[in-house]
Amino acid sequence: ALAEALANCFQTGVLDGLRVTITAGPTREAIDPVRYISNHSSGKMGYALAEACAEAGARVTLISGPTQLPTPAHVTRIDINSAQDLLAAALEQPGDIFIGAAAVADYRPQSIAQQKLKKQGDATDEMTLQLVRNPDIIATMASLSNAPFCVGFAAETENLLAYARSKLTRKKLKLVIANDVSRTDIGFNSDENAVTLVTASGEETLNTRSKRQLARDLVARIADAYQQDRAK
Amino acid sequence: ALAEALANCFQTGVLDGLRVTITAGPTREAIDPVRYISNHSSGKMGYALAEACAEAGARVTLISGPTQLPTPAHVTRIDINSAQDLLAAALEQPGDIFIGAAAVADYRPQSIAQQKLKKQGDATDEMTLQLVRNPDIIATMASLSNAPFCVGFAAETENLLAYARSKLTRKKLKLVIANDVSRTDIGFNSDENAVTLVTASGEETLNTRSKRQLARDLVARIADAYQQDRAK
Repeated sequence: ALAEALANCFQTGVLDGLRVTITAGPTREAIDPVRYISNHSSGKMGYALAEACAEAGARVTLISGPTQLPTPAHVTRIDINSAQDLLAAALEQPGDIFIGAAAVADYRPQSIAQQKLKKQGDATDEMTLQLVRNPDIIATMASLSNAPFCVGFAAETENLLAYARSKLTRKKLKLVIANDVSRTDIGFNSDENAVTLVTASGEETLNTRSKRQLARDLVARIADAYQQDRAK
Repeated sequence: ALAEALANCFQTGVLDGLRVTITAGPTREAIDPVRYISNHSSGKMGYALAEACAEAGARVTLISGPTQLPTPAHVTRIDINSAQDLLAAALEQPGDIFIGAAAVADYRPQSIAQQKLKKQGDATDEMTLQLVRNPDIIATMASLSNAPFCVGFAAETENLLAYARSKLTRKKLKLVIANDVSRTDIGFNSDENAVTLVTASGEETLNTRSKRQLARDLVARIADAYQQDRAK
């Protein structure tokens, strides 16, 4: 508790007066009233970042897909289900810094059935689900005329760093947090994580630590990168 | 607490010495390592039934998809994700009475990608997901040579009772619990529910009550129907 209080004191201020918007958790894309497509995401990393940003003095808006997590203290939470709803909420509250930690579904069903789809007779052993591309949340935010400082996540099972760097430039992000989701010891539902930060100037690896500590370490680096960017 | 203790006393015995297997919660059908198809289901009704069956003296096996619920006292819980895993567990523990309360996905992706599927370039705004039929759990259990007494659920948004009766005869079930999932005041994530019981001999509606009380009322009727069936 003392260490925590000290940590709180240490971080207070680095985001003072800034508005930070964070997306977290999975999205759910409805197939019909009972079925949906989703992604594995506990929301823990995004919630930990929201908590750490609030501790650092920011006014935090947390746009959250369905999770089982309590809202961190001093954080305004907006609940959404679909990627489209997430984007609408983000456009209303872009913040000075925008951190896209949600596991957004890339595709959604082309149409949502109004009634539960029935099995199509005993002869029908197959079904085709037509999907359409969802809006790219972080790329949309980063392309706004008055774009916030955008921090993205890259969650991959292979070619992680190459993809993270490509995402940084392709989507005009300031920082990408690269997350190897093929590892079962960290990430997803775990309370620990390890990541590599990718910026235009280089890479930094933060080895395995609690998501709470990792969030604080990330917030310190995000605040630093934000100030450097504003000073340009 | 007194009322609860009395209720416990009252029910003790109606399932004494019987093995009851209950499925609960949603299934998750993997698309790739991060994406899946699932169904809305909190698992609350199945868990409440497991608790009520244990109170009534049964040896209860609860085969559960991913939920956030604690395992009820004196219940053996087996965790599964996919419908295929659920069926494998059910075939190992069919019980004397089998209650299918899980929201099992009717279809699963034809193949599971070993790596996370990437967006297919900026030109690809659509994607097709090929699905194949999952095994029908309750129909499979009811068609076993030494079939347990099978209780199914019908969760529908329209034509509920007609569908429930058709399910009863088509799948050779003893009892179907019909659940109108188009109502937003009950069911799914709610702590309350109202159902209609459908058997070969008729229908009985149980109006809105807590899922815990509903579970006890259902167990009394299931035990009764089971004894009548054995007496034939």
